[in-house]
Amino acid sequence: MKIYLIASVLVLLLEPVKGLWPAPQELERGKDVIRLAEEFDITLKGSALLENAAYLGDLMDGVKRTHEYLINDNLQRLVVGRGESDRSLVNAAPELVGLNLVLADSEWSPIVLSVTEEAHKLYEDQDESYTLNIPSNSTSANGGALLATLSANTTLGLIRGLQTFSQLVYTLPSGGYRYIINTPISIRDAPAFSHRAFMLDTSRAWFPVDDILRTLDAMSWAKLNVLHWHATDSQSWPLFIPAFPELSQHGAYSSSQTYSRSDITFIREYAGSLGITILLEIDIPGHTASIGESHPEYIACRGKDDKWERFAVEPPTGQLKLGDPATQAFAEELVKSASDMMSSPYFSTGGDEINDACYEQDLTTTSALLNGNATLDELLSTFVEGVHHRLRAAGKTSVVWEEMALNRNIKLANDTIVTVWISSANVRAVADKGHRIIHAASDYFYLDCGAGGWVGKRGGSNSWCDPFKSWQKIYSFDPFASLDELQHSQVLGGEALLWTEQAGPENLDSIAWPRAAAAAEVFWSRSSGGARNATEALPRLHDWRYRAVNRGVGAVRLQPEWCALRPHACDVEEKEEH
Amino acid sequence: MKIYLIASVLVLLLEPVKGLWPAPQELERGKDVIRLAEEFDITLKGSALLENAAYLGDLMDGVKRTHEYLINDNLQRLVVGRGESDRSLVNAAPELVGLNLVLADSEWSPIVLSVTEEAHKLYEDQDESYTLNIPSNSTSANGGALLATLSANTTLGLIRGLQTFSQLVYTLPSGGYRYIINTPISIRDAPAFSHRAFMLDTSRAWFPVDDILRTLDAMSWAKLNVLHWHATDSQSWPLFIPAFPELSQHGAYSSSQTYSRSDITFIREYAGSLGITILLEIDIPGHTASIGESHPEYIACRGKDDKWERFAVEPPTGQLKLGDPATQAFAEELVKSASDMMSSPYFSTGGDEINDACYEQDLTTTSALLNGNATLDELLSTFVEGVHHRLRAAGKTSVVWEEMALNRNIKLANDTIVTVWISSANVRAVADKGHRIIHAASDYFYLDCGAGGWVGKRGGSNSWCDPFKSWQKIYSFDPFASLDELQHSQVLGGEALLWTEQAGPENLDSIAWPRAAAAAEVFWSRSSGGARNATEALPRLHDWRYRAVNRGVGAVRLQPEWCALRPHACDVEEKEEH
Repeated sequence: MKIYLIASVLVLLLEPVKGLWPAPQELERGKDVIRLAEEFDITLKGSALLENAAYLGDLMDGVKRTHEYLINDNLQRLVVGRGESDRSLVNAAPELVGLNLVLADSEWSPIVLSVTEEAHKLYEDQDESYTLNIPSNSTSANGGALLATLSANTTLGLIRGLQTFSQLVYTLPSGGYRYIINTPISIRDAPAFSHRAFMLDTSRAWFPVDDILRTLDAMSWAKLNVLHWHATDSQSWPLFIPAFPELSQHGAYSSSQTYSRSDITFIREYAGSLGITILLEIDIPGHTASIGESHPEYIACRGKDDKWERFAVEPPTGQLKLGDPATQAFAEELVKSASDMMSSPYFSTGGDEINDACYEQDLTTTSALLNGNATLDELLSTFVEGVHHRLRAAGKTSVVWEEMALNRNIKLANDTIVTVWISSANVRAVADKGHRIIHAASDYFYLDCGAGGWVGKRGGSNSWCDPFKSWQKIYSFDPFASLDELQHSQVLGGEALLWTEQAGPENLDSIAWPRAAAAAEVFWSRSSGGARNATEALPRLHDWRYRAVNRGVGAVRLQPEWCALRPHACDVEEKEEH
Repeated sequence: MKIYLIASVLVLLLEPVKGLWPAPQELERGKDVIRLAEEFDITLKGSALLENAAYLGDLMDGVKRTHEYLINDNLQRLVVGRGESDRSLVNAAPELVGLNLVLADSEWSPIVLSVTEEAHKLYEDQDESYTLNIPSNSTSANGGALLATLSANTTLGLIRGLQTFSQLVYTLPSGGYRYIINTPISIRDAPAFSHRAFMLDTSRAWFPVDDILRTLDAMSWAKLNVLHWHATDSQSWPLFIPAFPELSQHGAYSSSQTYSRSDITFIREYAGSLGITILLEIDIPGHTASIGESHPEYIACRGKDDKWERFAVEPPTGQLKLGDPATQAFAEELVKSASDMMSSPYFSTGGDEINDACYEQDLTTTSALLNGNATLDELLSTFVEGVHHRLRAAGKTSVVWEEMALNRNIKLANDTIVTVWISSANVRAVADKGHRIIHAASDYFYLDCGAGGWVGKRGGSNSWCDPFKSWQKIYSFDPFASLDELQHSQVLGGEALLWTEQAGPENLDSIAWPRAAAAAEVFWSRSSGGARNATEALPRLHDWRYRAVNRGVGAVRLQPEWCALRPHACDVEEKEEH
């Protein structure tokens, strides 16, 4: 019996720390177990912090959230018996009385900034790094109270580290202690890429504010730091715009399917406190039919819905006119007003899927072409330059979809960030143009693919971007594939995207999670070269997913629970490795 | 302004009755509008009903449910403006003061049976037909109170008709009247097929009882009449079995992930009151590894999980031994005890994916092969015959998966019902064997396909049954394809199936609905020959889905709301037809 117990303890001790997702850059771990003291507390330390109490509001919110997770997660280990066999070990384990947060005094930034402020910096100025040290009895020779330490240069780094800490804590079955295995643990961590986003389309389907807040929570658990908010499109215009309130008044699906000024402020501030910035997108000049509900005068090929296949990829038809001073002024004021609502230094003007046939039958645009002896791309370039100029004056760097760089002859500023969506095969071409890149290729990152065609055709046609992007497919993405080493620095990061022609609040959680978390690890955790090992990753992703469900996000199952409780038992092929 | 109003009224009047799903067999409709009186009531009429009050309990539950739907559905018409333009018409419309339920006095069944009792009859003895007549002012010359009438031969027919009635009622925006368009309406309806099922696998993933009850509700809205409950499998055994309580005690994922005796009774009675019977499946002799948790002595190739690919399609490995008197006795008692809990005259013993290699290394089975000089199929046949004999003695007709009829040399009674799952291409072969058929082919009806491979392989492999079965694909199914006309009567019906390797409570609603409703119409509504018209069907399916969401089932969106509010505006190709 004792031999059996020792054997099971050894098995326990030899197991890796499975809970961490995304994987930290450096991880050392021991063989001990520690349990959280009943009076476990998270405390702040360091002169910089204490002298800047005014900036600690959202950090303290993060501490409070972490406390709640520690109490409410109630995640039992994903092993047969759910950790019941740990009980005697945990009962005898030393107690961890607290976690100390330490903000390093940096000579570069003597002023402490809030999490929100750090999250809204330029990517190159952000610092999300942290170190986390959790002791065990054996490393604490003096026998004093055991304390863990989380250190970072910024409040943003502390917020990231708190997420990591919360992922290490399990609960014994039927209540009982919260505990951490494989102590001592030493983690040094920082993201591989600066832009790690989830994109949500709130035009094809509208989502209640609570859905967006819950999504932001889930993003924070995966250390995603950008909500790319594709707020508007041809189908509906839910977003309140201060300069043009009539847009959502007439362009939303209904008066209840809108985001008011206070909704937007709340979403922005909630995101900021999680260390998430919002990359707002107002997609122009295409994808704007819904503007026509209040401003038909700015819209070309409006209402050509009986022949929509000719004028748009999806109904309804309508694009902002080109070569029209009034439309130009409107578009510039529109992006300015929209971007003013956000604190991010980046703003997306979209620019995908512009339809030439739409302009060819628009009198305003064709007159401008004739009068100015200009090409469509020249008019388009003037349009985009004007809009981007206005954004730059407002302190914003522009983000665009890939066609702006590859398919249109447009003068883009060098610092314009290009999001590659059509295919990962186009990454190199964008890099060769010198732009910074966000990976969003449909062949890896489109969460909506694989649900069948949605236009009312007879028969069961496939999605245009079939098949479904499994988490393994997403996980296999190499951000540097096809790039020269000199171009690596152009990769800002990437995102998982949810277009919502066939999605809505009903399946938001299950279609997005945990797949978007797979993308999160691709862009947080530096790959040691070569393909990532999905076999190694699966038990960790199960862990993330079960914890997310316990936290109220309906992330879908990846395997039967039988497999989730038996790491690698449902593997094939690579099984010999374990 | 008046001309405009008349034009919009005409458009309204010319629209078909979109709400009905599945489509009734015969439908006549007029051009008027009627609104429900504030005191609208559903009342019973007819001597047979009144003399059998004891049998009216579940019918009265159905009446109460219908009342609640009428009050709470709050479904506004799926048109631009959501029916606001109907307001003046509705304000001026005559009032419908009630719906009379009439149970025809039948010389064949002078005794009134409850909905539950009717639902548990043999398929050939069931009668779900009904007629529904909704008047309009123009058909009520006497100017008296307007009453609708729902008539049926059985309480089961009345329950089906109540669902139809509830689907006809819309609510004006911002509150206001409930109303019915295109009155007068005359419907004669009956199902094309007797078995219209949703299959749920509660072994790979466990579902709380509430999830199953909600699923039964959604089934009733689509007039599905059978819950095929794949209750147990190798991964877990959640089902309490009176004769063997140890099975769920040790074989469930956990003590909380079980269905107790009272759970099972509650589910059965809840289903019965909705006119739904439960086809319980205990899948044997394969798919039984979880029995080994309490009875390892009955299980061949138990725990060969490190080489599971050789011994099972999925881990864990384990099948009931063959040629072993103790195992045989256990299996017979098992199905008897399980079937006793259900009122359906049908019971499924499964029988799919039996693995020969598993038996070849089992000492008990190989000894029986040697000692009896028998083949594996002979042992299997003896096993199945014994089990089916025991079920027959208990008054149950057996249902099996297709391999029992096609791939194994087994003596099946002629009345054994065969469920075709591997491929619709196998339907003809089963029919040629003379068995009755349930359509469940993976190439049409597997709701789980298209989520990627779930074994822990590297890379993003596809599902074995890719692609995702879109509602249009399901809807295109022809139940008589490949069959001779003489074989048509062998088709009992069909089902939509949810296997749960990658599903759970998190996505139950969105993965099942409204696609399972598409299958429901295939098997309820007689096709007038040739392929069904998905273009015609789409607006009706939108209607079903929006109503389901309002009733609390998270059915997924089929298209952007822009399309849902503009019937046929998002069509391609067939658009010229409209």
